[in-house]
Amino acid sequence: MVVSPKTSAPLDVPEPSLSHPTYAVILAGGSGTRFWPASRRARPKQLLSIAPGREESLIAGAVRRLAPLCPAERVFIATGEHLLEATASALPGLPKSAFLGEPTPRNTAPAIAWATLKVALREPKAVVIVVSSDQHIQDEPALLRALRRAAAEAEQGRIVTLGIAPTRPETGYGYLKQGAETGPGVFQVERFVEKPDVETAKNYLARGGYYWNAGIFVFRADVMLAAIEEHMPDLASQLETLRRTLEQTPEREPQATRALFAAAPSISIDYAIMEREPDLRMVPCDAGWSDLGSWQVVWELSQKDAQGNAVPADSVLLDANGNLVVDLSSTPGRRKVFALVGVSDVCVIHSDDAVLVIPRSDTQAVRDVVEQLSKRGRSDLV
Amino acid sequence: MVVSPKTSAPLDVPEPSLSHPTYAVILAGGSGTRFWPASRRARPKQLLSIAPGREESLIAGAVRRLAPLCPAERVFIATGEHLLEATASALPGLPKSAFLGEPTPRNTAPAIAWATLKVALREPKAVVIVVSSDQHIQDEPALLRALRRAAAEAEQGRIVTLGIAPTRPETGYGYLKQGAETGPGVFQVERFVEKPDVETAKNYLARGGYYWNAGIFVFRADVMLAAIEEHMPDLASQLETLRRTLEQTPEREPQATRALFAAAPSISIDYAIMEREPDLRMVPCDAGWSDLGSWQVVWELSQKDAQGNAVPADSVLLDANGNLVVDLSSTPGRRKVFALVGVSDVCVIHSDDAVLVIPRSDTQAVRDVVEQLSKRGRSDLV
Repeated sequence: MVVSPKTSAPLDVPEPSLSHPTYAVILAGGSGTRFWPASRRARPKQLLSIAPGREESLIAGAVRRLAPLCPAERVFIATGEHLLEATASALPGLPKSAFLGEPTPRNTAPAIAWATLKVALREPKAVVIVVSSDQHIQDEPALLRALRRAAAEAEQGRIVTLGIAPTRPETGYGYLKQGAETGPGVFQVERFVEKPDVETAKNYLARGGYYWNAGIFVFRADVMLAAIEEHMPDLASQLETLRRTLEQTPEREPQATRALFAAAPSISIDYAIMEREPDLRMVPCDAGWSDLGSWQVVWELSQKDAQGNAVPADSVLLDANGNLVVDLSSTPGRRKVFALVGVSDVCVIHSDDAVLVIPRSDTQAVRDVVEQLSKRGRSDLV
Repeated sequence: MVVSPKTSAPLDVPEPSLSHPTYAVILAGGSGTRFWPASRRARPKQLLSIAPGREESLIAGAVRRLAPLCPAERVFIATGEHLLEATASALPGLPKSAFLGEPTPRNTAPAIAWATLKVALREPKAVVIVVSSDQHIQDEPALLRALRRAAAEAEQGRIVTLGIAPTRPETGYGYLKQGAETGPGVFQVERFVEKPDVETAKNYLARGGYYWNAGIFVFRADVMLAAIEEHMPDLASQLETLRRTLEQTPEREPQATRALFAAAPSISIDYAIMEREPDLRMVPCDAGWSDLGSWQVVWELSQKDAQGNAVPADSVLLDANGNLVVDLSSTPGRRKVFALVGVSDVCVIHSDDAVLVIPRSDTQAVRDVVEQLSKRGRSDLV
């Protein structure tokens, strides 16, 4: 599997102009273990600089990419309360008010509802762009074009999602079935499709008209609040309480959100809202999107030498092919030279306190390492 | 190939008692590259703590092992001038006068000649035991028994070598062909045999009567000086000049040894003396001797778990067999946790500035890594 770099192929339709301000809501609650030893509970994937060819953390990349649409003062970062400090340190360009600390993990719906309310209190008809903080985009202009198109559609009162053009029969994502074209480069979503088996996924790829659901949503704040009222009336009434607090006693926001999250269901925005929306729209996007799901994917997206090695420049490679070496020492002075001899298709990941050696074909097993360390009580390492 | 731990099987002969003092001459001029990234020009193998199950450096082990025969005041360490300081730091229990810094590498004959002269100036009939600084002995009492026997034989005026009972058809060593028994546990050396091919080596092992030449020699100082006079008259006359300096103007020893080493041939004691001695004797020794020639050998001699892994205790091993992990961080606080997943028969060696990953079957290729780094001008790493 290789997500090849896409040249920025513009859709054959004019660029729309936007009449409402656009806000970014960047979801940064993840606490994945798939990038151990780089990722830790206190340093989840989005805070790591693992985007191939980039020094920035994934979340800094997410903010930077959206900056042409959403400048710093129109960005919200929804993260876990325990990650607030680390996340804010990773994004020194954002004001303190940008950071929303979820008191309890409740999946995406409550977090998006809270952030959308914050936007609505400033500008009810502003357009909100929801993205994840830990993804990778190879063709950033293509993403921006798709988001502009989605935002223009959202201004009309529709909820819009990006449909990622699939490049392989992936079984790890949900799919969106494309429906009728409703305007230039905009389609109805015929239905959401659960993660398919590999035969079905191959079939989708061959037939066309199926797109990956990457969790990128675009909507007007007031439209989303109305949808929550329709599909999640309990959450809507809790939001109404929060709105009153924010309007009348904004200093009590922490207590009010604590109450909201304590009562809110743990549910994704996909299940809670998107799949229930009768007229959801989709803008196809072919931007070299990746969820960077494993060290294997980092290798795939990295620049490699003629032998397929993605390694630091001063590495010594003898009879070594298809390897990934990542040195995440926090102190540059402690960076190592890596020598790989007669070793192929292996990942060697080095951090300040651990070294992982694992075949590229099996990088999902990193989770088992974390589980082992947890069992042994090595909370210093997980 | 496994050198199994030998129980201390005494030869069926009485222990001799010695009437002359015994001196140790420990050869520490090596600058091997086979233990990169642990070994460096300035930190050769003998200074490393790579003896399985031991914290001490190899050279400290050599001194400790011989201590029952040769206390600190009767030990000489022959090393390269550039290694004097590091070597002395590794052996804080020895007096400064124990360290002989060879001004120029000249193989073993000149170094042994110099050290033997130093012994002879103190006690002409003392017995000298020459050993390497970078070897490993599993059964230390067995070595001491063999050395006592060799020393007793040497007191009679013969030059004696230990013959290491071979445990595999090794092609990397020279062999000694056992001749007639001349006394209890002592044999003539019929001849020296160059490193054999594998068929010949197998033949030796099957037939018996062939022993590895480990470069362990025992002789009276005056006897060796006489042998040098006979076989290396040029060196003998240079030694005579050095003797006069040491007797009359000992403060000029550095200049005198510089002159001696500049003029001396670069030749091993084996070629220069031993192979020319008509009545060389051999004491067989079965002490789990190893020259620790590679990471592979370190693995062989290490204690291993049920899956054949020799790794730090807190390593995480999932579907991993037959691996060696060595962490040589100089600062204990920088020790890492190693996680090996789906990786087998591999060595992972971690030092302060480098990480090596290499299959156990190919550890000789470490030399190629050092060569690569040298070519690139990475003198900081070799």
